[in-house]
Amino acid sequence: MGKGTTLAIEVRPEAREPVFLALARTIVQEIERGRLKPGDPLPGTRALSRTLKLNRNTVDAAYHELAMQGWLVTEPSRGTFVATDLPDMAMHPQPVRPAGKQTTPVRTAERVLLRLSDGSPDVRLVPTTAFAQAFRRALASAAFTSAGTYGDPRGNSKLRDALSSYLRDERGLTAAASEILVTRGSQMALFLAASAVADPGSLIAVERPGYPLAWSAFRAAGADVLGVPVDAGGINVDALEKIARTNGRLRAIYVTPHHQYPTTVTMGVARRLRLLDVARRFGLVIIEDDYDNEYRFDGRPILPLAARAESDLPIIYLGSLSKLLAPGIRLGYAVAPPQILIQMADRREALDRQGDLPLEHALADLVEDGTIKRHARKARRVYHARRDLMARLLRERLSEDAQFALPAGGLAIWLRLNDGLSAETWAASAAKLGLSVMPGIHFDLETVKPAEAFRLGFAGLDEHELTRAIDIFERSKPSR
Amino acid sequence: MGKGTTLAIEVRPEAREPVFLALARTIVQEIERGRLKPGDPLPGTRALSRTLKLNRNTVDAAYHELAMQGWLVTEPSRGTFVATDLPDMAMHPQPVRPAGKQTTPVRTAERVLLRLSDGSPDVRLVPTTAFAQAFRRALASAAFTSAGTYGDPRGNSKLRDALSSYLRDERGLTAAASEILVTRGSQMALFLAASAVADPGSLIAVERPGYPLAWSAFRAAGADVLGVPVDAGGINVDALEKIARTNGRLRAIYVTPHHQYPTTVTMGVARRLRLLDVARRFGLVIIEDDYDNEYRFDGRPILPLAARAESDLPIIYLGSLSKLLAPGIRLGYAVAPPQILIQMADRREALDRQGDLPLEHALADLVEDGTIKRHARKARRVYHARRDLMARLLRERLSEDAQFALPAGGLAIWLRLNDGLSAETWAASAAKLGLSVMPGIHFDLETVKPAEAFRLGFAGLDEHELTRAIDIFERSKPSR
Repeated sequence: MGKGTTLAIEVRPEAREPVFLALARTIVQEIERGRLKPGDPLPGTRALSRTLKLNRNTVDAAYHELAMQGWLVTEPSRGTFVATDLPDMAMHPQPVRPAGKQTTPVRTAERVLLRLSDGSPDVRLVPTTAFAQAFRRALASAAFTSAGTYGDPRGNSKLRDALSSYLRDERGLTAAASEILVTRGSQMALFLAASAVADPGSLIAVERPGYPLAWSAFRAAGADVLGVPVDAGGINVDALEKIARTNGRLRAIYVTPHHQYPTTVTMGVARRLRLLDVARRFGLVIIEDDYDNEYRFDGRPILPLAARAESDLPIIYLGSLSKLLAPGIRLGYAVAPPQILIQMADRREALDRQGDLPLEHALADLVEDGTIKRHARKARRVYHARRDLMARLLRERLSEDAQFALPAGGLAIWLRLNDGLSAETWAASAAKLGLSVMPGIHFDLETVKPAEAFRLGFAGLDEHELTRAIDIFERSKPSR
Repeated sequence: MGKGTTLAIEVRPEAREPVFLALARTIVQEIERGRLKPGDPLPGTRALSRTLKLNRNTVDAAYHELAMQGWLVTEPSRGTFVATDLPDMAMHPQPVRPAGKQTTPVRTAERVLLRLSDGSPDVRLVPTTAFAQAFRRALASAAFTSAGTYGDPRGNSKLRDALSSYLRDERGLTAAASEILVTRGSQMALFLAASAVADPGSLIAVERPGYPLAWSAFRAAGADVLGVPVDAGGINVDALEKIARTNGRLRAIYVTPHHQYPTTVTMGVARRLRLLDVARRFGLVIIEDDYDNEYRFDGRPILPLAARAESDLPIIYLGSLSKLLAPGIRLGYAVAPPQILIQMADRREALDRQGDLPLEHALADLVEDGTIKRHARKARRVYHARRDLMARLLRERLSEDAQFALPAGGLAIWLRLNDGLSAETWAASAAKLGLSVMPGIHFDLETVKPAEAFRLGFAGLDEHELTRAIDIFERSKPSR
C-alpha cells in the first residue's frame, strides 16, 4: 500500500533548482538505475516528507510532476506506484531538469519500449506533406491575413462547412454548419456537453467499463457519474431504465455505440431502438461518442444514433480527427440541437474563446480536398491487416489463457483472461520486459473487482513490432 | 429598447433548411439591403415569435446564430441591436446558409469596412514563411512521429523549455519549464486560474473599467467578480484593501499592470509595492495578465509583478503569443507556484487533455531560433510609428472634443470624450460610415454610467488606413 514503504535517497538541488524538481530528478534516477521498478510502490507523501525533512507540499509537487511525465501513477486510496508503462525515453530526452541551459542534462535510459496503446492510430501514416502544405496555404489565405480580430467560438466557418458535407457523405448525418461546434479535441466536447446538459450535482450515466477521460470531463463540469454495465450487445438498457425510473437526478447517458470503449462491441439495432425509447420516455440527453467511426473492417459502418433518431430527441454527437490522424493533432467536434449547441458555444467562448485559425483552416482544406477520406481508406486497409495479424497471434499463443471476440471495427482487441490470471500482475511483468499494456482496471469506475482483461491497441505498431510485442506479452505471462 | 420595435419580414425556409437559419438569413438580407442599420434595435424574441408565429426558441436560436457571426449584439437588459462593427464581408462570403452545396449562396454586401480594434496586432506582419516551415519541421520531427499516445497536459516540453528561457531573457522572470502551463490562449489560462483559486461563490476583484472576457472566464469557473476603480496610476489599491478588509469571500485580484486594459496606464512602482503588500496581508492570489509585454515604446518595459515579488507570494502570471502574432494563433501560458499549477494542469487535462503537438512544436522552434524576438522588434518599431501617427491625428483633429494620455506601450489609445459627447452615439454613427470603434461601455462591469471614452487600437492598420479611419471618425462625430 506504499504506507510502510521507504525510499533511501538524498536530495541535492543544483544551483537555483527548485527542491521539488531536485526530488523528482532523484526519483527518476532511482528508476533509471533499476532501484525502483515498474509497479513498485512509493512511500506516502507524509512519510517521505518526514524522512527527507521536506515540506509535504514539495513532495506532493514532485510526485505530481512525475505523474504528469508518466513516471508515476497514483491510484486513489491505494497509493503511488512506478508506472508500468514508463515514458518512452526517445520522447523525453531530458525528462526532468531545471530551467536554463547551463545545467547538466539528466542521463537517460537506453531501453527502447513497445507500447500497445488503448487504440491510438499510427502517426507514421499521417499525410504530413499535404498537411504542411495546407498549413502554409492557410497562413497565406485571406481568411487569415484579414482576420484582424477574433473569430467565431464555434470554429472557422470553412471547417464547419467541410465537416457538414463530410458527415453527410460519410456517416449519413445531416447537420448544418451552424449546428456544428468545432472543439480542440473530443475531450473539450465532452466537457462542454456535460456543462450544457448537467447542473452541478446532477447525474450522467456512463458505460462500465468505459472511458475514464469522459468521467473526468463530466466531473470537472460538476456532474456525478454512475456506471451502467456493458455486455456483448453494448450497454444494458434495462439497467439504465431502472436507474432512470428511480433517480430524478439523471440527465444524460454517455455511450460509444459503434465500437464500445473499451470492450469494442457494437450496439445492436434492437438495443439502439430501446435506448432511444428510454431516452425519450425519461427525457435524457444522449451523448454519443463516435470516436473512431471510420475504422470498420467487417460489414458496413452502422449509422450513428444521431442519424437515426427523430429530430425531437436531444442527441449530442461527438467526433474527432485525433483518432483519424494522430493523438497530438487536436480537433474534435460536436453536433447538437441549437438550444444545446448555443450553451456549449457560450461556455466554449468563456473558457477558450475560439480555435486556432490556421490549424482549422488547414484541416478544412484536407477534409474538402478528399485527403482525409483517402487517408481513412488507406489507414483502414493497414489497420485491418494489423487486426487480423494480432488476432492470429493471440489465438496461436494465448488461446489457453484468454479469449476475445474479433472486433468488427476500432483499433483495439479486448482480451479477457481466464480464471486465476491477474491482468495487473501481467502488466507489471510485461513492463519489466519493456512492453506497456493497459489492464482492465484502467477502464473501471470502481477498483474493487475490475475486469481481468486487456485493451490491446494494434494500430500503432507495424507487423514486425506487433509480432515482437506479442512475443514479450506471452513471455511475461505470470504463473497462475 | 427594442420592446416596441417591429420587423416586417417573411421567413421562407429553403429545402431542408432549419427555420431558425431561414430567419437568420432573412435578417442578414434586411441588414444588407440597408433596411436594418448598424445600431438599430431588433424586436424582442417574444414579440417577434408572436408576429411571425414561430416558436420563441427558434427566434432565440436565430438571434444567437447572428450574434455569434457578429451581425447582432445583445446588451443585457437593453435588448438586441444590429452590430455597429458588422462582420467583414470578405471573411464571411456566405454568412448564413443551410448545409449542402446545392442551395443558393446569400448575396453579400459590397461595403468595405475599417476597424479600430481593441488592440489587435497587424496579422500582415506575421512571419508566415518561417511559421509554415517550422510547422512542416514539426510534422517531420521525432517528437511527432513517435508520439503514439497522448502528451503532457501542461504542453509540449520543448515549448515550455523555450518559454522558460524567453521569459528569463526578455522579462526577467525565472520560471522552470515545470512551472509553466501552456494553454490554448490566455482565455483558457484565465479560466484555469479562476478554477484553481476560487471556489464557487468566492470573489475575484477586477479592474473597472477592465477586460470583459476575463469576467466571463471567472464567472464560467463559478466565481463572482467585483470591480475596483482604475485611475491614472492603475488600480486603486486603497479601494481594494477596503474590500479585502470587509469581504471574506475575496480570494484573488486580477490586474493588467503593464498596460492596463482598456485605459493603457502603467501601474507605478509605489502602487505595485502597495498591491503586493495588500495581497500578502489578506492572503490574495494575484492574477497578473501581461498580455502585450513586448510593446513598450517609451523607456524600458517594467518588470512584471511576478518577477518582483518574493517567492512566497502566490502570483499567477499570464502571457500570450496571440497579441504578439495574431488573434487567430492561439497560444497562451501561465506561470504559477507548483501547488496552483498542479490544479490548473489537472483541470486542463479534464477539459482539454493537451495542446496541439505540431503547433506547439512549431511555435517552440520560432521562440528558440529567435524568430519571435526578431518579429517583436520589428512589430514594436512599426507600431511605435502607428501610435505616434494616431496620436498626432487625434491631437490635430479632435483636441476640442477629447483628450488622451500618450500610452507608453500597448496597442491602443484610450480617448476620453469631453462633457456632452456620447461614445455610443458616436460609435453608431461611425458604423454607418463603415468604421467600427469600441465605446467605453464595452469595458464596464455596469452599464449605468459607463466611461464616455473609446479604446482605439492602432496596430492593425497601416498609415493610409489609419488616416482614413480617423477621417471617418472625425466626420461621424455627433453634435452635442
